[in-house]
Amino acid sequence: MNELKILDMVLPQLKQGSDIVTGPGDDCAVIDVGLEDKLLLIAADQVVSEIHYTLETNPRDIANKLLNRNISDIAAMGGTPAHAVLTIATCAKKMNWFSEFFEAIAQTAKKYNISLCGGDISSSPSETTVCSLTITGWVAKDNLCLRSNAKADDFLFATGSFGNSFASEEHLYFEPRLKEAKFIANGYSNAMIDTSDGLLLDAWRLCKSSKLGLTMFTDKIPCNPNATLQNALSDGEDYELLFAICAEKAEKLQESWKFKRGLTKIGIFTKDKINTIFDEKGKDLIKNNSKAGFKHFNE
Amino acid sequence: MNELKILDMVLPQLKQGSDIVTGPGDDCAVIDVGLEDKLLLIAADQVVSEIHYTLETNPRDIANKLLNRNISDIAAMGGTPAHAVLTIATCAKKMNWFSEFFEAIAQTAKKYNISLCGGDISSSPSETTVCSLTITGWVAKDNLCLRSNAKADDFLFATGSFGNSFASEEHLYFEPRLKEAKFIANGYSNAMIDTSDGLLLDAWRLCKSSKLGLTMFTDKIPCNPNATLQNALSDGEDYELLFAICAEKAEKLQESWKFKRGLTKIGIFTKDKINTIFDEKGKDLIKNNSKAGFKHFNE
Repeated sequence: MNELKILDMVLPQLKQGSDIVTGPGDDCAVIDVGLEDKLLLIAADQVVSEIHYTLETNPRDIANKLLNRNISDIAAMGGTPAHAVLTIATCAKKMNWFSEFFEAIAQTAKKYNISLCGGDISSSPSETTVCSLTITGWVAKDNLCLRSNAKADDFLFATGSFGNSFASEEHLYFEPRLKEAKFIANGYSNAMIDTSDGLLLDAWRLCKSSKLGLTMFTDKIPCNPNATLQNALSDGEDYELLFAICAEKAEKLQESWKFKRGLTKIGIFTKDKINTIFDEKGKDLIKNNSKAGFKHFNE
Repeated sequence: MNELKILDMVLPQLKQGSDIVTGPGDDCAVIDVGLEDKLLLIAADQVVSEIHYTLETNPRDIANKLLNRNISDIAAMGGTPAHAVLTIATCAKKMNWFSEFFEAIAQTAKKYNISLCGGDISSSPSETTVCSLTITGWVAKDNLCLRSNAKADDFLFATGSFGNSFASEEHLYFEPRLKEAKFIANGYSNAMIDTSDGLLLDAWRLCKSSKLGLTMFTDKIPCNPNATLQNALSDGEDYELLFAICAEKAEKLQESWKFKRGLTKIGIFTKDKINTIFDEKGKDLIKNNSKAGFKHFNE
């Protein structure tokens, strides 16, 4: 399956209403509901057994991963999460599975002031379990971050570090970068994405939406323990933030950065070589990368 | 699995924000986003292969069933659908599957002015396909219909006819009763539900939420071709409307009813015998009904 190819076919068919500020193709859709100062965000994401976690993963970790990756999508828009609805299709028969799942998701929802306010539970005809969650949020109009807002000569910055998320199980235990994202969106950047599918692929998405190219400072990319540069570029599921920022604001942001998680300048956007990512030595990183995230568009 | 038992355990754990007018336990959650005249509705529902359709069902019918049953939830609140997001987990490999699915869902969304504005596609590790859709909508504050609004001595009315929805494949081809619901909600009733899980179970849900009993006029229930009363009561997936209405308004509604689909008085709510449904001869319909929808709370 090739999600990008499917989306290229599908998206033009989907008619968007006049209240849709940003339709499919960003971390969230953005809706103008008629309020003066803020916009509604909505996104949906799922976790599938044996795809996003193993059959041994406990229901508590499944629930947290599901909700946290949705919160990460709201964060990437500069927003604050508000509501969620959930569907579960599972062959789980034991009440324990459900009680652990829901205890975890209720706790995490409470932590982020999210009202989990609806959903559906169905049986599954096989061992496959699919949990799908839709999240809404609010973003101040001035703080809205879109993939399409990067400008030529903006730097590409990243929070945190990359790679090896599956082996380290960080993909189950990460905390969404909500505070960091709100800080960045509040005056520093309006072009952001979270790294769910791999640093290189998600950086490329910023390029594609903003109609820019990117030179990536590959020797500056912070790698997690036991992660090579290749892992950092393409493993995915880091749920860090990538954002574009002009030189002047970048300096101010670095001075005022108060979070434990690091902040690193890892590239610069270019007005030529649109949709490509080269390293500083002129190597085409997309052409030379067939792994992980990039299977999406090389297949 | 016992969805009702799970919900009884889960719902008290879910903390709802002050903007939540109605949380889990109705056809949609109702959110006050701060607009003067209208409220936001949100609901999620799914279709699972071999549960809600067979492996032979074509993707066009799957897509339409998924979207239409969500529209039916918005209708049951007295609302108008607005936006949708969608997740798909499937082992389907052929582009045809996706193109047929999305062509159908895009057409139906367009028909109802719904912006399908986001989602996610994942592979599934088995033959199981799960499609989950979240729908939003708007309802005028005066027209909001809740399961909890039925009053003692209100009549129970139903649109259309019941039973045999699977064999007739009506469960794939039904049209949501959106126009009928808006007409009813506009001054006639504020207590409604759609019949997805069976006439008896869904009527019981009105009783439970409104803390009432119900006497059901079983000989008046319109049955579909080849459907017995038993089928009508418990097959489910009719997607008709059940609503409570006082005697005076009932007469006016019947006079002004302009829709092809019929309107039938099938019961009366009682302030005693809370949470029970008896027929006119005094037979307890819930105790004597272990089939279909009622498996949910007899298991």
